[in-house]
Amino acid sequence: MTAGAGSCGSDLNRRHIGFDRFGAGPAECRSPGRDRLMTYCVGMLLDAGLVLMSDTRTNSGVDNISTFRKMFSWHVPGERIITLMTAGNLATTQSVISQLEERNKVPGDRHPSILEAPTMFQVAGEVGRMLRRVVEGPGEFPDPAEGPEAEGARFTASMIVAGQIAGMEPRLFLIYPEGNFIEASFDTPFFQIGETKYGRPILLRGYDRAMGFEEAVKLLMVSFDSTLAANLSVGLPLDLMVIARDGFAQLHQRRIAADDVYFRSISRGWSEALRRAFQSLPAYDLAGADAAP
Amino acid sequence: MTAGAGSCGSDLNRRHIGFDRFGAGPAECRSPGRDRLMTYCVGMLLDAGLVLMSDTRTNSGVDNISTFRKMFSWHVPGERIITLMTAGNLATTQSVISQLEERNKVPGDRHPSILEAPTMFQVAGEVGRMLRRVVEGPGEFPDPAEGPEAEGARFTASMIVAGQIAGMEPRLFLIYPEGNFIEASFDTPFFQIGETKYGRPILLRGYDRAMGFEEAVKLLMVSFDSTLAANLSVGLPLDLMVIARDGFAQLHQRRIAADDVYFRSISRGWSEALRRAFQSLPAYDLAGADAAP
Repeated sequence: MTAGAGSCGSDLNRRHIGFDRFGAGPAECRSPGRDRLMTYCVGMLLDAGLVLMSDTRTNSGVDNISTFRKMFSWHVPGERIITLMTAGNLATTQSVISQLEERNKVPGDRHPSILEAPTMFQVAGEVGRMLRRVVEGPGEFPDPAEGPEAEGARFTASMIVAGQIAGMEPRLFLIYPEGNFIEASFDTPFFQIGETKYGRPILLRGYDRAMGFEEAVKLLMVSFDSTLAANLSVGLPLDLMVIARDGFAQLHQRRIAADDVYFRSISRGWSEALRRAFQSLPAYDLAGADAAP
Repeated sequence: MTAGAGSCGSDLNRRHIGFDRFGAGPAECRSPGRDRLMTYCVGMLLDAGLVLMSDTRTNSGVDNISTFRKMFSWHVPGERIITLMTAGNLATTQSVISQLEERNKVPGDRHPSILEAPTMFQVAGEVGRMLRRVVEGPGEFPDPAEGPEAEGARFTASMIVAGQIAGMEPRLFLIYPEGNFIEASFDTPFFQIGETKYGRPILLRGYDRAMGFEEAVKLLMVSFDSTLAANLSVGLPLDLMVIARDGFAQLHQRRIAADDVYFRSISRGWSEALRRAFQSLPAYDLAGADAAP
């Protein structure tokens, strides 16, 4: 579709290209076409840069739960960093990631590589087009009732794309299955995908664009802890990435497992702190309030 | 379907039958068939009895928001109290409520009245059958593609039924659109319907079966406050009902409007208490944690 990206004179092969995949968990998978990344991912824009967190649970039903990474990152030191998080059908998201990787390895291919795109806006557009093509499917279904529309609804996915290219601002995008996308601003400074509701109230209350990375990571951990407590389809370990403005590399990245000391202290501490917060509020007065007839 | 309920010798007409509807809000409604009760209702079982809360917002799109009650209660003083909360399609839930009311007024009708059912289990069964019939529709659709199944998916609803009949325990049921239902126990002591996720984490953490009504109402208000803050489809005023064990009447009922002093103090206090709780947790240490390669 997209015409000759080979014409972008590329000095990419001369650079050190860091492609970072987080250490994989057990990748057993009985019915890959139906696996859903029922997932929780958050990307957050701060004055200081970007903070991203994702879980790793995927399931084809509660009896078939696996661990898959949902955070992928590419960077060209000193020039750009691009991180992507995925939610939805696993076959769909893996296909998009694989295509992105293949294009990065063969930059002279007919599609532009996201490592060559001149702006983050164009990176988001390219990821969106790729996602839409995969969701729509190859169009091989002879029966219209089983065609792309019918399948598309089941094999759907959404993504968060975050990053920065030298000379421009850090940017954060939410990409819909249809391939279109929206960008975060300081009015709407974070995006969530997947199982977003349990962990949203604390994000709404705790977020502050001026907060440091240490506080932002804490906020994300509390949001994930609330989600983990309420929903089986989101599970440990978590992947964390911190991208400092103008760093063009991961300032910090980490896989947070169930035995992580800090996460455990947050999880336990938040439970206690919530209880204290709840107790600090005045109790309702059945007698004092005016009862209905 | 159900055979001669008229044979249940009824002394119902001799009793004082209290039917309580909460004061109605503005009931303007431009397209009633499509109105959705996108709603938040919680029913909670305590050692002391039952506490119920519902919002009142209904919408056919964000440009058409109205206020409708979603909590309905019937009681026979000293003998039984039955309270019902609804979520889903407004035409469906109003039809079920109207049919329940009509049967209560004409107890000799062919269907058993929920005020005559010998147990809460049978009350739940009767409400479930009625809900299922309404969701399935009248079967008037000539085109199968527009038939009950297709419509049913859009005109769906679920309900919470709570109450107590003299000589038996207080009971709490969640009724699915298909008409089947589950009952709360002290393993699963509360049910939520509608927009359930935002307010679930605090319920999971704050619930204690031994808590008093005053604390339970506070917990529900915090859960509703978190939901209201995150989602437009849930709105004030709220309806609250407290049913004491063996009371067979509302111990306390109230409509909580936006200017309610206690709700405002909870809303503001919770926001501040959460912030303090969050600040009381240790910040993440980017340097101290072992970073990935």
